[in-house]
Amino acid sequence: MTKQELIENIKLRQSFLCIGLDPDIEKLPCCLKTEPDPVLSFNKAIIRATANYCVAYKPNIAFYESLGSSGMKTFEETVSWLKENYPQHFIIADAKRGDIGNTAEHYARSFFHKMNVDAVTVAPYMGEDSVKPFLSSPGHWVILLALTSNKGSSDFQLLENSLGEKLFETVLRKSKEWGNDGQMMYVVGATQGKMLQDIRRIIPDHFLLVPGVGAQGGSLADVVEYGITPDCGLLVNSSRSIIYASSASDFAEAAGNAARDMQQEMASYLRAKAIIAQAE
Amino acid sequence: MTKQELIENIKLRQSFLCIGLDPDIEKLPCCLKTEPDPVLSFNKAIIRATANYCVAYKPNIAFYESLGSSGMKTFEETVSWLKENYPQHFIIADAKRGDIGNTAEHYARSFFHKMNVDAVTVAPYMGEDSVKPFLSSPGHWVILLALTSNKGSSDFQLLENSLGEKLFETVLRKSKEWGNDGQMMYVVGATQGKMLQDIRRIIPDHFLLVPGVGAQGGSLADVVEYGITPDCGLLVNSSRSIIYASSASDFAEAAGNAARDMQQEMASYLRAKAIIAQAE
Repeated sequence: MTKQELIENIKLRQSFLCIGLDPDIEKLPCCLKTEPDPVLSFNKAIIRATANYCVAYKPNIAFYESLGSSGMKTFEETVSWLKENYPQHFIIADAKRGDIGNTAEHYARSFFHKMNVDAVTVAPYMGEDSVKPFLSSPGHWVILLALTSNKGSSDFQLLENSLGEKLFETVLRKSKEWGNDGQMMYVVGATQGKMLQDIRRIIPDHFLLVPGVGAQGGSLADVVEYGITPDCGLLVNSSRSIIYASSASDFAEAAGNAARDMQQEMASYLRAKAIIAQAE
Repeated sequence: MTKQELIENIKLRQSFLCIGLDPDIEKLPCCLKTEPDPVLSFNKAIIRATANYCVAYKPNIAFYESLGSSGMKTFEETVSWLKENYPQHFIIADAKRGDIGNTAEHYARSFFHKMNVDAVTVAPYMGEDSVKPFLSSPGHWVILLALTSNKGSSDFQLLENSLGEKLFETVLRKSKEWGNDGQMMYVVGATQGKMLQDIRRIIPDHFLLVPGVGAQGGSLADVVEYGITPDCGLLVNSSRSIIYASSASDFAEAAGNAARDMQQEMASYLRAKAIIAQAE
């Protein structure tokens, strides 16, 4: 998917919501436990209920890998069902990969050509030749970890270095030379709202994938205040607060309501920033 | 597997060789192409031919994931077959994972309890809470990326920071507080031989997993010179130079010969350092 297509979808749906498909087998509604593939049934029900309110889905591969090869089959089936039924939605494989060149090429082939996702999250620690192989496939995106929303992000990402920058700033500045803003995005944790100002000085135009809004306590207002661009430039991810809005048989309806609430808040910001027209 | 058990196996086999099981479908010998699962057949043939000369196997998950869910099934079958037939060998899932707490817990459960490997490689960028969940399972190991052997390692790992250290040194110094040397090892690229001296000042006792010997040009003599400890403290990985020693029908025999050559060189170093007794 091109950057322009993504922006059009954001304007069409008046939303920059990304929904994390992180199905924890222990948290699935009891009513699904008898299904042949409870996780796949859960994903389909959540997607049907929320697709009108979001522009992207982000399955975190850990939740599927932890179920073994059958879990990976569920992941593949979820992605192919999404592509078939909701072709306009942007699909992010949250895999946080990072490996040397020939191995990274295997991952790129796996995610982009076998699993047919639009984007893969990649970790920067191993440097340019662990990222470049993901950038050779037009219409497919690398979403590089820059500043994460977890407590441990302070251990290394915030270290000041001899270049007078924090590590995550050096990651942004160096990596933006590896590809353009039509093939790279960055993960920036929402719990660090004000840091978005510094980040926008380095990458004014790149899309940011912002986790940590909702369950992890980040504020959507802060993210918009400090991170939005004339093209929106944001994908805000929410997982648990939407997909586990209810654990009863009304789980899908509750997820739809939670997604619609976020979409409406996002629409008001998009109007306020004149990215979409004022409501009649 | 405990540290003491690993050391005993090294002394028993007079080897600290780890063999990377990275089966590239395009490089498999033609004679296997008709097998129901060519990769599994390749792995079993390589393992049978090399098990006497090594103490560890390291399948790189990228090579299996790139084949989709069927590839992950092959990975699981390779590991369970190894555990059943060669229970003394240390099995490393080279996955380079790194994710926030609840996701990392899913990975830890997946690798240690579902796939039953002994160790998982983990990336440090996200900090302590992305590593800790892998340390809660006695007898199971985290092998943390510190200094990798690829060109891109210089992009971030060698950055001097305000603590007066390179990033990889800070990773070593901080992370060694997260677990003990009976549950943590470090990946240290062999192409940086002399840096092993600095690394041993920070972690004198931890085992190091050293990739990049052979195909990537690192020198085993340098690794031993600067990295060996009284307990050996080294696992030296070789992948392509052993498993692709021949692409003809004698591939297994050629792999066995290549592994035996490395084992004999390693035995001479173990004797020279009096870690094993002199030959009669």
